[in-house]
Amino acid sequence: MSPRVDEAGNLIGRRIGSISPQAGLVNLQNEPSNLPTLLIGSHLDTIPAAGRYDGILGVMMALAVVRAIGNFPLPFHLDVIGFSEEEGVRFLLPYLGSRALIGTFDPAWLSRVDDDGHTMRDVIETFGLQPEKISSAAYPVDRVAGFIEPHIEQGPILSASKCPVAVVDAIVGQSRLQLEFRGQANHAGTTPMSMRRDALVAASKWITEVSRYGNSIEGLRATVGALNLSPNARNAVPGLAQVSLDVRHADDSVRTKAVNELCDFAKRCASADDVAFSIIEHQQQPAVAMDSGLVTGLQQSVAACGVEPCVMPSGAGHDSVVMAETFPTVMLFVRQPTGLSHHPDEDVEVGDVAVAIDVLQDFVRRFTPSTGKEFRR
Amino acid sequence: MSPRVDEAGNLIGRRIGSISPQAGLVNLQNEPSNLPTLLIGSHLDTIPAAGRYDGILGVMMALAVVRAIGNFPLPFHLDVIGFSEEEGVRFLLPYLGSRALIGTFDPAWLSRVDDDGHTMRDVIETFGLQPEKISSAAYPVDRVAGFIEPHIEQGPILSASKCPVAVVDAIVGQSRLQLEFRGQANHAGTTPMSMRRDALVAASKWITEVSRYGNSIEGLRATVGALNLSPNARNAVPGLAQVSLDVRHADDSVRTKAVNELCDFAKRCASADDVAFSIIEHQQQPAVAMDSGLVTGLQQSVAACGVEPCVMPSGAGHDSVVMAETFPTVMLFVRQPTGLSHHPDEDVEVGDVAVAIDVLQDFVRRFTPSTGKEFRR
Repeated sequence: MSPRVDEAGNLIGRRIGSISPQAGLVNLQNEPSNLPTLLIGSHLDTIPAAGRYDGILGVMMALAVVRAIGNFPLPFHLDVIGFSEEEGVRFLLPYLGSRALIGTFDPAWLSRVDDDGHTMRDVIETFGLQPEKISSAAYPVDRVAGFIEPHIEQGPILSASKCPVAVVDAIVGQSRLQLEFRGQANHAGTTPMSMRRDALVAASKWITEVSRYGNSIEGLRATVGALNLSPNARNAVPGLAQVSLDVRHADDSVRTKAVNELCDFAKRCASADDVAFSIIEHQQQPAVAMDSGLVTGLQQSVAACGVEPCVMPSGAGHDSVVMAETFPTVMLFVRQPTGLSHHPDEDVEVGDVAVAIDVLQDFVRRFTPSTGKEFRR
Repeated sequence: MSPRVDEAGNLIGRRIGSISPQAGLVNLQNEPSNLPTLLIGSHLDTIPAAGRYDGILGVMMALAVVRAIGNFPLPFHLDVIGFSEEEGVRFLLPYLGSRALIGTFDPAWLSRVDDDGHTMRDVIETFGLQPEKISSAAYPVDRVAGFIEPHIEQGPILSASKCPVAVVDAIVGQSRLQLEFRGQANHAGTTPMSMRRDALVAASKWITEVSRYGNSIEGLRATVGALNLSPNARNAVPGLAQVSLDVRHADDSVRTKAVNELCDFAKRCASADDVAFSIIEHQQQPAVAMDSGLVTGLQQSVAACGVEPCVMPSGAGHDSVVMAETFPTVMLFVRQPTGLSHHPDEDVEVGDVAVAIDVLQDFVRRFTPSTGKEFRR
């Protein structure tokens, strides 16, 4: 392959295609300019104290597919992508590499500052790239036949199943809220229970309900992951509880109904305890459907490998959320025995990875790209 | 008065007494060594972002009493004390000044380190005192007739009453626990609700019960003031919730029963959610009775001032907890209109402070110390 680093720091290796099966190896060093491109890969970065497989396993599997294909002639270029920045840890902005690749990287982001006071512009320049050229990282829309992202599951669903891999048909929509219960801080020893306006007690009643509600609806995930108290002192009645709410579902209407009902319940909990409730922040991202043609094709390859077929939505975000805005996109999940991700105990079985590589190889060998503008979604 | 700073940093002003009423002013500069001493005062330090009255108001009122008494002959020395370190903010050890004053300051504490890496020994030396002489700050036990601590209430009970002041008959006992709910951190998007071991959900059910239980028993205070989550990330199921529990009551048996029942309930909450529960730390301090003779005497002075009599326990700890170990001790609370303490909105009414000074002055004028060993409790 001929590798390169684009201006957004994505590491890209091209396995060039040939116009006809007859051309074979001869053309491998002589890139035909009129061939479409199939993209395959995932991200290279990860979070602090993470596991070894999130992201990078997808890139390694893509390389294994290239090796397994050998000299087999493909009527398209196969570009292995290692996205530069998916997690968004440093600048609190995820998907920077894939954004650049589809041409929606906003130059205003270059002024963002990390915890050490460095701007994104400085960091990119120090790495040896030219931030003003990031727009050149974009692939021409009409030359991309599709994007496949192999990835560990990052959850326990496959580990509780007989499926080593699963085709992802959608990435769930997500609501992210920051909420506030505001009571009155006071002395824990001197303030009678009946005269308190305890923000944590109100928040606790609500958190209990978030869990009950989440459990009552199929496929719903409702999580209070962050809670910060003020003054957060052992001998003080909590005056302020700031809590997050993360709600996900593959059906946007189920998700938005859940958010509304949970916020209504929060108001009632707060009011009953003479505590003020407010929504500080409310972001949402709709569910993203994977390309139906690619989903079907990948399912056929799973069947061709003699493996139990399994289709599921992804509960986590991925570069595929961004890529699907512009290119036909699909994901293939590999089973994760521990069910843990973003965690040192993240793991995979060698046999499951081998199945995934077989499936991907079968898919790539049989893939026939459409040509021209019709790639564009 | 003749002021001095003792080796623990307590600021002490002595208004000397005279052996007989006839001696009067003549002896004020000529201290009779055989007189007992009545101590009056409170602490000079406070916490960050505090109010203006906690501690210091008691010292100012003691000075006002000395001024109001003028040349009136007292058969005892009246020492106004400004304790150096009651809150324990810097070294997480409260009551350092009063501990030194009763002779129970542990020299091992001098090696404690503050957040900036300075030892208590260094800090005391930098201030200009000699740590190795702290034991010399102790009053001879048989020469102290009693200790009176005037203080703002630090709670809302008097503000909801007709009483400008209250005589404190006990300081409630306190249990301080640090508890841990340990589940499994996981991805908020990919982990089905039914497969979670959410530490915060278990803790929330318990916190709700702590509040309900606290409200169900007269005079009980049960508070979860601090809660720290790990990983405390918006998109992660909480794996660990560390919570504090503060339980107070004037009756130690009610308090210990409450602690036991709340810990049992925590175990059941944790177990129901497949979460581990453990008690990390468990400190307790029994209730401290004030000296009955001083309580009666102060009540008589309240009545003599024509004010509605009010007696109450203190829900907060004070230097009086320490002083009562060795000396006959009593407190006088001044009403606090906002009910807030350790807070910038801490407040007092001038009229209430005037009543408190009148009560204290009456008490001091009429006080007749016992002599010799019988002071010792």
